[in-house]
Amino acid sequence: MNFLHLPEVRICFVGDSFVNGTGDPECLGWTGRICTNANKKGYDITYYNLGIRRNTSTDIEKRWLQEVLLRLPKEHPGRVVFSFGLNDTTVENGKTRVDFIDSIRNARKILSEAKQLYPVLMIGPAPYAEQEDPQRKKRTTDLSKQFALICEELHIPYLDVFPILEKSNIWIDEARANDGAHPRAGGYTEFARIVENWDAWLNWFR
Amino acid sequence: MNFLHLPEVRICFVGDSFVNGTGDPECLGWTGRICTNANKKGYDITYYNLGIRRNTSTDIEKRWLQEVLLRLPKEHPGRVVFSFGLNDTTVENGKTRVDFIDSIRNARKILSEAKQLYPVLMIGPAPYAEQEDPQRKKRTTDLSKQFALICEELHIPYLDVFPILEKSNIWIDEARANDGAHPRAGGYTEFARIVENWDAWLNWFR
Repeated sequence: MNFLHLPEVRICFVGDSFVNGTGDPECLGWTGRICTNANKKGYDITYYNLGIRRNTSTDIEKRWLQEVLLRLPKEHPGRVVFSFGLNDTTVENGKTRVDFIDSIRNARKILSEAKQLYPVLMIGPAPYAEQEDPQRKKRTTDLSKQFALICEELHIPYLDVFPILEKSNIWIDEARANDGAHPRAGGYTEFARIVENWDAWLNWFR
Repeated sequence: MNFLHLPEVRICFVGDSFVNGTGDPECLGWTGRICTNANKKGYDITYYNLGIRRNTSTDIEKRWLQEVLLRLPKEHPGRVVFSFGLNDTTVENGKTRVDFIDSIRNARKILSEAKQLYPVLMIGPAPYAEQEDPQRKKRTTDLSKQFALICEELHIPYLDVFPILEKSNIWIDEARANDGAHPRAGGYTEFARIVENWDAWLNWFR
């Protein structure tokens, strides 16, 4: 038999509902879109989506390693893309779901462990469309700054999508018209476009 | 804000590379396609794909519950679709990766535990395109018959896709032209069509 021999890459995307693609009627999210486009360039991507709704950095710290080890055995080239943080900043019962200092600790632990095993990328939290909590924007951008510092220290590429998506009408408009948090196909296409133009992602496919 | 209020359903698809959609350049597989089409009918599906390449029933028995519990919390309507078995029948080092009796034991354990927690569907193994192991077809169809009996006993709907896909030129042809096992978009579209016409799947969306 004649098999195609495209370069094979297995990628785990680990994170929250935005990684899952919640709200996208096309069931691709930004993660499926960027993998589909990498396939179009001549790669053979095995796509593992490990986004879970409501997951905080604490939730992800507990599960990521076990789930990823099962999917990325040593014999095959495996890579991990993380994206989380927004759920940490949600206020419930008078305080954020995760303390600022714990979010930082979780991110450092996750990322430093991951980079010992795989090539790793980190993408920061997206803006939240609902405006009932006016302090949330500052909490999210403060967290993103800390994530950037951790990634710099660990030599992990970091993409701060917040300011770009904040200016994108489609992300915010679709999220507002949907459930207040998650966009639909247009918002995820916009997110995918940002990641696809990121040199760290492009470097994986050249 | 005005939110859409489509009926929400969270579905975990648990299985092997065929559940993962390995080989599909569109990164949907049959699972993403049937969820996309359910969304088109007016549902709001949260789609969790838990297919892992090379997973046998033994591998799945070890991980499925932990992974699904994290994704389907009690507060939200959650459902589980299983599909596995083909990897059990692979011969390595002179014997099948999983003994026939253990495949049956694993399936019974997984399915009986799952049905206590969620509505469950089970889909049998697909045909294998490579023909180097002439006994594999019989092992696979024998296993599928046992899965059907277990599901009947547990009142879980079972879909035997084997005979339908075996007759489908596109499934076998694409798999042969690809890596000998996994089809591409056409084969997965065919698999999706079979599931979408299955009354047990249709009953979830009426």
